[in-house]
Amino acid sequence: MTITTVGLDADDTLWHNETIFRLSQKRFAELLADHAEEPVMMGRLAEVERRNLRLYGYGVKGFTLSMLETAMELCDGSAPPHIVREILAAGREMLTHPVETLPGVDEVLAELAETYRLVLVTKGDLMDQERKLAASGLGELFAAVEIVSEKDRSTYDRVFARHGSGAAEAVMAGNSMKSDVLPAIEAGAWAAHIPYHVTWAHELADAPEAHPRYVSLSRIGELPDWIAAIDDK
Amino acid sequence: MTITTVGLDADDTLWHNETIFRLSQKRFAELLADHAEEPVMMGRLAEVERRNLRLYGYGVKGFTLSMLETAMELCDGSAPPHIVREILAAGREMLTHPVETLPGVDEVLAELAETYRLVLVTKGDLMDQERKLAASGLGELFAAVEIVSEKDRSTYDRVFARHGSGAAEAVMAGNSMKSDVLPAIEAGAWAAHIPYHVTWAHELADAPEAHPRYVSLSRIGELPDWIAAIDDK
Repeated sequence: MTITTVGLDADDTLWHNETIFRLSQKRFAELLADHAEEPVMMGRLAEVERRNLRLYGYGVKGFTLSMLETAMELCDGSAPPHIVREILAAGREMLTHPVETLPGVDEVLAELAETYRLVLVTKGDLMDQERKLAASGLGELFAAVEIVSEKDRSTYDRVFARHGSGAAEAVMAGNSMKSDVLPAIEAGAWAAHIPYHVTWAHELADAPEAHPRYVSLSRIGELPDWIAAIDDK
Repeated sequence: MTITTVGLDADDTLWHNETIFRLSQKRFAELLADHAEEPVMMGRLAEVERRNLRLYGYGVKGFTLSMLETAMELCDGSAPPHIVREILAAGREMLTHPVETLPGVDEVLAELAETYRLVLVTKGDLMDQERKLAASGLGELFAAVEIVSEKDRSTYDRVFARHGSGAAEAVMAGNSMKSDVLPAIEAGAWAAHIPYHVTWAHELADAPEAHPRYVSLSRIGELPDWIAAIDDK
């Protein structure tokens, strides 16, 4: 089996992201502490995010708008102005947050780029994902960057046809079972799950445990050997 | 000269968009009528939008966040809650606004698609632009869709290399002198300016008047003949 192309997720696979969202959520919870209990608040925020997903898509801007909407709801339509200002500021700060690559990422990507075509496949806001890639210093290693509105089977069909030699000769690696692993396998690609220590509820799904093209790795450092083993099959 | 590929801008070239932004701005002005004079208000909003552009990029979500921030500033940090709720609602409504194609668009695109590879090249929010394309019914006519964070020379280099036979054999058509015409010409493509009756201040620029690869058309219906004339050169 020949692998020509390696797709990589960005947020929580190459650099920290969910931790930054969690920090903003913590700030949100503190701001609204007088108005609701934390579990109620977080439940409501998750619900508003889910409801807005088809309008806003993924990323910081939609998350900021959903925090504002939730704050309004939790305060019976009358969130105090300082809460609105703080949420707007939290959103802007997320969009300027320094990018910190995860351990091993720089070395592994440099190694993989010698043999394979690397493609970044990510959801989120266009401007923000491009900013993070530039700030990560990893940009030069990628043959292509695809910022997509959704990661489903057709996304991987299209991406691996466009930038590689089709899904059958491609590996997708990422931290989301739902977005990186399952639809890539469905498209006919190989998929490596590399969990991050926290996962957004929306991205949870069951592993395709016994699937011959699936693997779960504990860190990205294990990725090159796994891909080399496919090449040897 | 052979033209193989035609790039088309989306907002205000294929369907109404700026009018919808103007409607939201009008609503914004009415909401804040007690807090500032309209020219002051609009000047401040434009300034906040410009300041946020590098963080938010283009599109409705960033515009909504900028309206909220401007409202806060105009009310000395204390915009009343109903104003915040109304702006959030205005943003959501923009994202569900029906898509109305401009006169002649359907016929012209169907005609061009018989001879050329059509590529949609647009800024804005990923999810929103995909929704509008789907709602327009024009999706099938495009060989490719590129939703980009910025339209500069390198964007057109990349897009016409990827989806066509290079910029020299491509035409770009759109309503923005700054985003559709000038950088496409710079990249070596032909460019047709098709003005919309209103233009966002940020998109204004001088025309490359005497440039041999530039034309100004009064409506999209004139595009096929102009492209055919290039083909005959």
